[in-house]
Amino acid sequence: MDAARVRSLLATRRPGYSLEGAFYTDPAMHELDIDAVFSNEWLFACNVAEIPRPGDYVTLEIGRTPVVVVRGKDGEVSAFFNTCRHRGSVICTEPAGHAKRLVCPYHQWVYELDGTLLSARQMPTDFDRHAHALRPVHVEVICGMVYVCIADSPPDIARFKAAVTPYIAPHRPERTKVAHSMTIIEEANWKLVIENNRECYHCVGNHPELLATLIEFALPDDPRATQDFQALMQEKSALWESLSLPHLPADGGTEFRCIRLPFHRGAVSFTADGRPACTRLLGDLKETDLGSVRMFRAPNNWNHFLADHIIHFRVLPLSESRTALKTTWLVHEDAVEGVDYDVETLTQVWRATNAQDATLVANNQRGVSSKGYRPGPHAPSEFMLSNFTDWYAQKLSDYIDAAAGGRGIIRLAAGG
Amino acid sequence: MDAARVRSLLATRRPGYSLEGAFYTDPAMHELDIDAVFSNEWLFACNVAEIPRPGDYVTLEIGRTPVVVVRGKDGEVSAFFNTCRHRGSVICTEPAGHAKRLVCPYHQWVYELDGTLLSARQMPTDFDRHAHALRPVHVEVICGMVYVCIADSPPDIARFKAAVTPYIAPHRPERTKVAHSMTIIEEANWKLVIENNRECYHCVGNHPELLATLIEFALPDDPRATQDFQALMQEKSALWESLSLPHLPADGGTEFRCIRLPFHRGAVSFTADGRPACTRLLGDLKETDLGSVRMFRAPNNWNHFLADHIIHFRVLPLSESRTALKTTWLVHEDAVEGVDYDVETLTQVWRATNAQDATLVANNQRGVSSKGYRPGPHAPSEFMLSNFTDWYAQKLSDYIDAAAGGRGIIRLAAGG
Amino acid sequence: MDAARVRSLLATRRPGYSLEGAFYTDPAMHELDIDAVFSNEWLFACNVAEIPRPGDYVTLEIGRTPVVVVRGKDGEVSAFFNTCRHRGSVICTEPAGHAKRLVCPYHQWVYELDGTLLSARQMPTDFDRHAHALRPVHVEVICGMVYVCIADSPPDIARFKAAVTPYIAPHRPERTKVAHSMTIIEEANWKLVIENNRECYHCVGNHPELLATLIEFALPDDPRATQDFQALMQEKSALWESLSLPHLPADGGTEFRCIRLPFHRGAVSFTADGRPACTRLLGDLKETDLGSVRMFRAPNNWNHFLADHIIHFRVLPLSESRTALKTTWLVHEDAVEGVDYDVETLTQVWRATNAQDATLVANNQRGVSSKGYRPGPHAPSEFMLSNFTDWYAQKLSDYIDAAAGGRGIIRLAAGG
Repeated sequence: MDAARVRSLLATRRPGYSLEGAFYTDPAMHELDIDAVFSNEWLFACNVAEIPRPGDYVTLEIGRTPVVVVRGKDGEVSAFFNTCRHRGSVICTEPAGHAKRLVCPYHQWVYELDGTLLSARQMPTDFDRHAHALRPVHVEVICGMVYVCIADSPPDIARFKAAVTPYIAPHRPERTKVAHSMTIIEEANWKLVIENNRECYHCVGNHPELLATLIEFALPDDPRATQDFQALMQEKSALWESLSLPHLPADGGTEFRCIRLPFHRGAVSFTADGRPACTRLLGDLKETDLGSVRMFRAPNNWNHFLADHIIHFRVLPLSESRTALKTTWLVHEDAVEGVDYDVETLTQVWRATNAQDATLVANNQRGVSSKGYRPGPHAPSEFMLSNFTDWYAQKLSDYIDAAAGGRGIIRLAAGG
Repeated sequence: MDAARVRSLLATRRPGYSLEGAFYTDPAMHELDIDAVFSNEWLFACNVAEIPRPGDYVTLEIGRTPVVVVRGKDGEVSAFFNTCRHRGSVICTEPAGHAKRLVCPYHQWVYELDGTLLSARQMPTDFDRHAHALRPVHVEVICGMVYVCIADSPPDIARFKAAVTPYIAPHRPERTKVAHSMTIIEEANWKLVIENNRECYHCVGNHPELLATLIEFALPDDPRATQDFQALMQEKSALWESLSLPHLPADGGTEFRCIRLPFHRGAVSFTADGRPACTRLLGDLKETDLGSVRMFRAPNNWNHFLADHIIHFRVLPLSESRTALKTTWLVHEDAVEGVDYDVETLTQVWRATNAQDATLVANNQRGVSSKGYRPGPHAPSEFMLSNFTDWYAQKLSDYIDAAAGGRGIIRLAAGG
Repeated sequence: MDAARVRSLLATRRPGYSLEGAFYTDPAMHELDIDAVFSNEWLFACNVAEIPRPGDYVTLEIGRTPVVVVRGKDGEVSAFFNTCRHRGSVICTEPAGHAKRLVCPYHQWVYELDGTLLSARQMPTDFDRHAHALRPVHVEVICGMVYVCIADSPPDIARFKAAVTPYIAPHRPERTKVAHSMTIIEEANWKLVIENNRECYHCVGNHPELLATLIEFALPDDPRATQDFQALMQEKSALWESLSLPHLPADGGTEFRCIRLPFHRGAVSFTADGRPACTRLLGDLKETDLGSVRMFRAPNNWNHFLADHIIHFRVLPLSESRTALKTTWLVHEDAVEGVDYDVETLTQVWRATNAQDATLVANNQRGVSSKGYRPGPHAPSEFMLSNFTDWYAQKLSDYIDAAAGGRGIIRLAAGG
């Protein structure tokens, strides 16, 4: 990738407009995104509920980099490059599993859950096991959400943690279990997947199931907000304040967003009829109408925290035009399937919404691949897209500057 | 793409020989072809018979650029980049359809059939709708054939139009309907697909169905022409001249070709037995034996105009080694399926021929991908290939010169 | 490909360690491997038993270069670029076949089995047929094994031939027939496929069927060799010496390896119970326990020569992460299926082993694609990997030096 070309594309960028086509369609730009963004940021990996016991692990791939997140003997969550220090085989080959120790399937090198190399058969007696521990990946657990970063020096995440914890903690995500999860492949660049999520301008024309309960206004002072919505907001604010639950927008700048917003009057959950999808509320909650805490963090994660369930969305790019979206539904750890909830009802709205969005972003990808495509203006209600593209442009610009200051070139090495 | 390398490949080109392997196999050369040829030339898109009513449209992709061809309220044919001016979604997602207005499925921006932006909900009051009309694509309708060009300044097409109209107009293509169309994907570079079509040297070994009626000699003065053919030609010439139908070769240089040639004695159409495939002749024709007007225009279109039906072939490159070939059979608009024609009989010969050619060009692609491949000499009967490769080389050379004079570099931007 | 980058990667290479990730994962490095290694070395193509009669041929693709190996009228084996000298079509389109003459399916140019162009219909009378013979590929038949080289000037193979012939000739491979062959596609770089073969460190954890008979020690003086093995080796050495069969390691440097080693006590063949898979022994052999001659030649071939059958393995890279492995089982030409052998028993062990290895190398490919991958140390028993990576590094280095001295650049031309 030619740094001058990226700079030139960034220079011609018009804030408040969609990005130049190359950002969405050029394979070399995809490699740059993997380097500058996904290898250089905190990424949502999973919820701790997915690895409840010591030895439980989940795996993911950041670009082509396999990572394993594992619960240690002491109950702490760690993450490692999921690559053996011998000749580089992947160690944990399944999406999730349980193991007392991590054993490479190739030559049976054995690693403890903390990454130390316990044994490497047939290696010489002077072999330095300590120098061949699994290479660690940075981990931060925030309200049950596991974020990982494969950079040597990860950016700050403390501000995010401090800001969102008061909103999320009352939902007790660390006391949940996975009711369902699914991964779909969307035929679009990851930024189109994120942009699709960052606005509800498209909802009325495409998401009937979602709009049965969701109000498409994103902010209390949205110019589209009706008098009715103002009244509803005032009423719910009073309720949530009486329960000491924060609801006003957190100040996340372009990095993250956190806010509590009500559903349509009478609705309390993402269901066809607005009733709770799980009768066992989260944690020790008594009040069913907590609206939803909507939390987003660039570049790869949005979430909804309700009184009865939590939904995490995880975005991982596969190529310049393919993106994996994993959706995970969590309920109270003691909720009983078939008694307190059923998976069909719990997942119906977002399964439908995800499928609709997959079509929309695939159409978007096709259209921006055109020589006739020109960046177009965001609608006022798409202000969160402008935040996102600003954030992205800054991230790229910082990376190129650092590369110029440091190594002087942008090396887009395939496979590392 | 490195301009110097292309110049060097062009410099070593030997006229009358097949091209260097890189022209057929290098992905970067494919991108150059999209830029220098397909984004810079008139391309056959469809016949007006495919969009008879106002609001009817067909879509196609030139490289990765979606285009929509639409019949307007006034009956005129227009074409647009099929990309919304908001955030770039494809607007018409189907291969063909009908719409009163073109509505983007993403956020429901509404365009008139003439491309003007009628409404963009939620946009601010000062939003300039006029600046956000669909971006037009050049269109030229020639004897019912819709040619489009996505260049800013298209090359001249008037000479072509003037030359071929006298041959084609008597067949009244504007009064036809689509009897059948099919698209096949050939595993070969588009230039091999064209070259395959530009000679009948391969026919005797491969196309028994076609040669039941087609004479493989391409010209009246072909050295292979037998005495019998000379006599047939003289006889048919007299007939066609009595009907004021031109038949001698048009002077199309390397750009296009147009000629009327007879079938084998006793045959009048591309059928197994040589009898008409459609008993209702085109337009107001009375004479069944009009041979076939064979028209070719570089880079993407060849055709046969007979007394009873018309066949269009449209070539669009998908990658350096994959090409879409669309074949469309047209009959008189009042012909009745099952009475005047049946689709099986009408399409049999060219369905077989297309399938045979698909195998041949896939073999050709495999062979020219070899390090052992060296350009080989055209046979005398392959003179039309030499025309085509000359035309192509000139097109590339002109593009590189213009790029050098203008922007100074060849930018092969993925996705524009 | 940037020569400086390759040099830098080679410079940071640590002998005795696995290679840097780019060597296994970068598409440009794959192209370099095709140029520097596979277009520049002797490659195992097939056994003469696959083309017993004049006119029999087999085809293969080296990178994207089709090659045909054919038995001539005089019984001699030749090889040619399988590309017509006219417009470059592949001539022999099937994996194997029989033909009196090689006729291009496109325009029926006819070549003799020795490559001379016999006829090219319709070409002008002054057309020089002699200048358009099939372009030859270098061939060397060594103990029935056909090696080909598409370089202009192939490297020396005489030393290899002289060294391995005494081991292999007694098994009379020229008097065999193909009992079975199969090709599998492995999702890994070809070097990982070779490395996987060059060590049996992974066997105990993965290959129960193979280890039923195979001793994982690779050398008589292997530090893992038990007293029991020493005794067995002594005993078998005496037997083989009494039969004048060489068994000590040949001195192949990093280029090749040849040695005769025993099976586990009581076993004589790669079968579940260790008994011969074919009751008709090879050639005129009487003794069933000849262990196996294990022969390897970089870059693409390993083999086992037993008393009752021969197995050839042929490796051909398809992309940076896909490799074709062809396995061929040969038995005495007069052995009768269902009487002397059955295919199931004959092939069972290596079918299972190949499938297991395919999983292992796919895991290896995933792991070395990681940004977290770092080359790791070979175990002492992996000394043959160190030989191979040394050989490979030298090959690349020589190629770059030659390119710098000669043409001055490394041109990785797609398609030649």
